Amino acid sequence: MNNRLSNALMYARNNQANTLQNLKEFIHLHSISTDPSVVNEVRSTASWVANQLRRIGFEDVSIYETPRHPVVYGELLLANESKPTVLFYGHYDVQPAEPLDLWESPPFEPTIRGDNLYGRGASDMKGQVVVGLTAVEAMIKTGNLPVNVKYLIEGEEEIGSPNLANFIRTHQELLKSDFVVNLDGGMLGPDTPTITYGLRGLAYFEIRLKGPIQDLHSGMYGGVVHNPAQILCELIAGMHDDQGRVTLPGYYDSVRELTEDERNELSRLPMTENFYLELTGAPDLFGENGFSPVERIGARPTLEVNGLLSGFTGEGSKTVLPAEAMAKISMRLVPDQDPKQVERQLIEYMNANAPSTVTWEIINLAGNKASVMDRNIPEVKALSDAMEATWGKKPLFRREGGSVPVVSYMTEILDINSVLTGFGLPDDNLHGPNEKLHLPTFYRGIETIIRYLDNLAKMSSPADG
Amino acid sequence: MNNRLSNALMYARNNQANTLQNLKEFIHLHSISTDPSVVNEVRSTASWVANQLRRIGFEDVSIYETPRHPVVYGELLLANESKPTVLFYGHYDVQPAEPLDLWESPPFEPTIRGDNLYGRGASDMKGQVVVGLTAVEAMIKTGNLPVNVKYLIEGEEEIGSPNLANFIRTHQELLKSDFVVNLDGGMLGPDTPTITYGLRGLAYFEIRLKGPIQDLHSGMYGGVVHNPAQILCELIAGMHDDQGRVTLPGYYDSVRELTEDERNELSRLPMTENFYLELTGAPDLFGENGFSPVERIGARPTLEVNGLLSGFTGEGSKTVLPAEAMAKISMRLVPDQDPKQVERQLIEYMNANAPSTVTWEIINLAGNKASVMDRNIPEVKALSDAMEATWGKKPLFRREGGSVPVVSYMTEILDINSVLTGFGLPDDNLHGPNEKLHLPTFYRGIETIIRYLDNLAKMSSPADG
Repeated sequence: MNNRLSNALMYARNNQANTLQNLKEFIHLHSISTDPSVVNEVRSTASWVANQLRRIGFEDVSIYETPRHPVVYGELLLANESKPTVLFYGHYDVQPAEPLDLWESPPFEPTIRGDNLYGRGASDMKGQVVVGLTAVEAMIKTGNLPVNVKYLIEGEEEIGSPNLANFIRTHQELLKSDFVVNLDGGMLGPDTPTITYGLRGLAYFEIRLKGPIQDLHSGMYGGVVHNPAQILCELIAGMHDDQGRVTLPGYYDSVRELTEDERNELSRLPMTENFYLELTGAPDLFGENGFSPVERIGARPTLEVNGLLSGFTGEGSKTVLPAEAMAKISMRLVPDQDPKQVERQLIEYMNANAPSTVTWEIINLAGNKASVMDRNIPEVKALSDAMEATWGKKPLFRREGGSVPVVSYMTEILDINSVLTGFGLPDDNLHGPNEKLHLPTFYRGIETIIRYLDNLAKMSSPADG
Repeated sequence: MNNRLSNALMYARNNQANTLQNLKEFIHLHSISTDPSVVNEVRSTASWVANQLRRIGFEDVSIYETPRHPVVYGELLLANESKPTVLFYGHYDVQPAEPLDLWESPPFEPTIRGDNLYGRGASDMKGQVVVGLTAVEAMIKTGNLPVNVKYLIEGEEEIGSPNLANFIRTHQELLKSDFVVNLDGGMLGPDTPTITYGLRGLAYFEIRLKGPIQDLHSGMYGGVVHNPAQILCELIAGMHDDQGRVTLPGYYDSVRELTEDERNELSRLPMTENFYLELTGAPDLFGENGFSPVERIGARPTLEVNGLLSGFTGEGSKTVLPAEAMAKISMRLVPDQDPKQVERQLIEYMNANAPSTVTWEIINLAGNKASVMDRNIPEVKALSDAMEATWGKKPLFRREGGSVPVVSYMTEILDINSVLTGFGLPDDNLHGPNEKLHLPTFYRGIETIIRYLDNLAKMSSPADG
């Protein structure tokens, strides 16, 4: 072990009490981004984060206004220009704490019980922000931050990051980096370090069918006027075949198939059928034939109905033949599908299958491509090695089924890959009562990021390579 | 022409000015049953109707309270007991008049323009109530009402007759009659007297599907958890085949087929495909192969989706995999289908087709059988002959696609057939602005009912037969 690494690790271990105190202060701040009554305290939290960056040694720290909650940005570019520049992403806002009566200790009074620190945001993601800051602090305070570090911490993640894409778009030069570390990704268990290297993309549409010009009496017209709700159901029913595959024309043509190597890797993940049955309470599972649950979620595209609305939906009965019917449907995409291409496939399907008894329109509501990183690039290897050194075992590599907007923004606006990891656990009750942070994992997280920064320093900057 | 008939017709003709004045008084009353702000005027309207019955010569007139608006009942049983007893049904309530700015004259200030009297309720059905009252008046005032007459006029038809079934159930002896004349049925054109002899029945259900215990993230679970909205669509899609026929097991087994004679009769009706296209604005029509539009609406059973609800239906996108999905579906029934049997067929269909990935329940919300009268019974012949004598042409016989609750109640509670006819026209703008009554047709209606009562008197009471 080099001196740089051992000194930084030693610093972090000797300063655990201070680190914990910092985290408690951070959790104590009511930075509930969705709650207008605490808007000033959200702002104070941004200042607190900025002050932490300054305390650690960042020289250039700014609070950028947005239409709602500010973004905190800081950078420390002390390392040689040939060294990589890492951009840490985080958020300082938290979910509301309701229902308050289910908390065993007050959500904004961080409290230790056993190995855990309880409080809103302890795991999601104030604890994770402190992991990154403390690792960087340990490097700085021991006189040797070996890479260039930028820090972007927003205050709107829990409300969907409405202003982040615009901030990134208008600060591209500021944010220019080689790589993003996003510690909002969590891990599968305290002994299972995890790297999420893939996320699915999304294509989201609203389908609207119109039949007669107004709602009709189902007795007076039922039998001659085609019911738009029935047609909508028939169109949606036709979008899957009996193998659970999506039937839009050409839907699988550009889907990147899993390699044998990747299938083997994914098969190590502990998410079995029983895991999903217990987690969701669904009576039975479903999916595309020939793929495991993990593969179906992480590496296979889907088509979901997100919403249905037509006719009378109140209490009791009303004999209406609806004039209109609406569905929200979305596709989760995998590499190398393109949301624009999927829209064309949907339109082609509707042209081929919608009957002449209705008119229809499709509204495109959202779209982004899947992002899957090469697991063999040096930045991922540096993290994987750091985890192995800390836990004594290789991390699991997983692909997740959702999309993370900030990861898409970094890819699409800045053309920078993100590695999604973190030290939150599946039972941390993110967004629920009694959210907690597992402190042994938290401290291992700090050591992991110290090792990671040290490993990164051994690489040349990819920008020069 | 006998003296009884000619005297009554003469009386009616000589009294047209008074009749019109009565009708104007009736329309002037704001008997909007759905509007709580005019509840006292609805009550005054009931009193006005009761006073009219007394003025004409009814001896036994009562106003019966219900939980909302009262029922007016009167009877005059002067005829020989061997003569038939006719129960006239009517309603004194009207629809709201909004939007008021579209009326050319105030809705409750009845105004004559050309051949029409404009005002809310002029056609639906204050004018029709006055038709019946005036015909009976003409018979009484000329000294010869040849049949026994009962009059039931409710004040809640436009809000779905919520208290009528209970009133009928608790006054069966009072209402005992041979036949019901319901003038709320309208006619196809001023030169097309019309008798509606059949109505479809109804079976109305709510289907609820449940999958996971709560809404899930469509990215994190899409591909392993079966989407209840998708399943609902597939189940509904399977309820029709490609011939437009309903696929519930045994659905057509008890359907009474149309006779060749009846098909010929129905083919005389002017409701072509173009008629329905223009009336509804639907881009194209639909229905069971092998049947005309009139047959499909009047004589063939259907299955309609009345409502769909699942997941996120607001503005924009939310990537939810819904925990539940709901549909309201209803079947229009023909003789000799039974709503209870249809419920069993639906349950059998669900048992056979609902996948193991959801649980489901079916809620029965409404049900009544179809009612079709024999067109050859004397009471119908008496009406048909009266129309032919007035218009110089035979009436058209039609079957309607809807259900009329009061007709079902009369059949199911009192076991009395109803003939549904009337002198409202398709362009009367019932429920819309500028509702009108075509006065020449109104006066012909009075003559028709006088002739009808005269024809009825020539029959023996069916109760004795």
